Amino acid sequence: MIMYLNGQYVPREQALISVEDRGFIFGDGIYEGVRSVGGKMFEWGPHADRMINGLAGLRIPFGAAQVNALEAVCEQVVEKNGLADGEAFLYLQVSRGAAPRAHGFPAGDVTPTVFVSASKLVVPRKLRDEGCAAITFADMRWKRRDWKTVNLLGNVLARQAASEAGAYEAILHEDGLVNEGAATNVFAVIDGVLRTHPLTPRILPGVTRKVVMELIAELGLPVREDAIPLDQLASAEEIFVCGSTTDVTPVVTVDGAPVANGKPGPMTVALREAFEARLYQAAAAR
Amino acid sequence: MIMYLNGQYVPREQALISVEDRGFIFGDGIYEGVRSVGGKMFEWGPHADRMINGLAGLRIPFGAAQVNALEAVCEQVVEKNGLADGEAFLYLQVSRGAAPRAHGFPAGDVTPTVFVSASKLVVPRKLRDEGCAAITFADMRWKRRDWKTVNLLGNVLARQAASEAGAYEAILHEDGLVNEGAATNVFAVIDGVLRTHPLTPRILPGVTRKVVMELIAELGLPVREDAIPLDQLASAEEIFVCGSTTDVTPVVTVDGAPVANGKPGPMTVALREAFEARLYQAAAAR
Repeated sequence: MIMYLNGQYVPREQALISVEDRGFIFGDGIYEGVRSVGGKMFEWGPHADRMINGLAGLRIPFGAAQVNALEAVCEQVVEKNGLADGEAFLYLQVSRGAAPRAHGFPAGDVTPTVFVSASKLVVPRKLRDEGCAAITFADMRWKRRDWKTVNLLGNVLARQAASEAGAYEAILHEDGLVNEGAATNVFAVIDGVLRTHPLTPRILPGVTRKVVMELIAELGLPVREDAIPLDQLASAEEIFVCGSTTDVTPVVTVDGAPVANGKPGPMTVALREAFEARLYQAAAAR
Repeated sequence: MIMYLNGQYVPREQALISVEDRGFIFGDGIYEGVRSVGGKMFEWGPHADRMINGLAGLRIPFGAAQVNALEAVCEQVVEKNGLADGEAFLYLQVSRGAAPRAHGFPAGDVTPTVFVSASKLVVPRKLRDEGCAAITFADMRWKRRDWKTVNLLGNVLARQAASEAGAYEAILHEDGLVNEGAATNVFAVIDGVLRTHPLTPRILPGVTRKVVMELIAELGLPVREDAIPLDQLASAEEIFVCGSTTDVTPVVTVDGAPVANGKPGPMTVALREAFEARLYQAAAAR
């Protein structure tokens, strides 16, 4: 496996960083996860914009032009790993770099650490077709979830709990409301209307969420960006989660109880099909 | 500078870890900061116990015997860096180790990454004598602050804001209450009684805080472990912060306004003196 690290393409075992990197010491970094199909990045622009916004939020000196230039790096990493013919997951991370430990930003010139890797993505068709199980889990994360930082322990513990419960995703809730999944955004159909959390610092502005919102408009489905009360989740008519490797995946059980009749609902199926059409048409068009 | 990394003592420039270390990718690790005086660790037991508790909380397979064995490693790192005659700050971190990226805990054997470094500590006597400035800052951190994890962006941004305001520390508040400092615990005197936040997951159980509580009992001072209302901070009779490199440091201004007459108060001075006596007597006794 070939990775990109600080300007070089190196084998995995040579992809080494300083133990004093602020990514390791403080979780002081921003990341992205991008889907590639046929060697091209899907929705690169929104991913790059979100990364630029997060880096600006943390005031890491790695600007828009530098982030935008990573699209070509991603394509190179895909190519060098022989992943250009199928689908891949690109992981990108920029940390503030290595410096002697002190909480505040280091004085002087510190070069950010830039990392890109790619792995083969095998889409789990069965999960998309039949739906997945989810659990509910208290949201323990810090308050700027709109920045895609590597302060991810709240997500790690939630996903681990899901996995131990035999579920695919953990639906995070706080103050009686559903925020989002540990690595996805959450939609539910309540009283015939699609509902999802509005874009605030309480959730990540998902790129797949954005595409789904566009598809909802195209399909003329009713939608409200208004947080789902946790106590209405069990009686939702449909639930799905979405994300860059999850696409649109139906949720058919929550905490072990079936959602409606336990099968993917009609709006979910329509959005899943529309999403996949867009994903693969985008690839074919390039 | 010689550092300890995964069983070896290496020069700083050779202290390298995998870019896939979960410490870098998820902030998936626990750390400690320990004071050494004359080559010996001050209050090693409580530091080790807190690290053991945090590692158990995150279920990182690095147990009590392994943590306790790091005391000798710390002494070695101090010795190898020629810091045994004065005072030093020891930094210890254990992450879950390197594994291909997935939120949940990696399957199979993954060896935790273990890192120890030491730096010379020059105690800022003027700050201890004359007191420091502090700002108030909203607490943005995740919900398990009792585990000393490296998910530290809330602390980083708070300390940076303090520094830009010309202050030493940021006092973090939430829901109208004072939690603690970005890298310290906070005490205030209100109506003649010492007050500090009780030990809950909202704050770090500080080792210096523990020593200060013991000294308060020895000196017969009145104390209540009950969170300080933020709106009573400005009118507090005394404020101090404490921590492993901060010892007991008076706070003489908050957000630019003087605390009482702007000079360290009598309980603060008494506790500072008692703390330093204990710190240096402990060293002399060994």
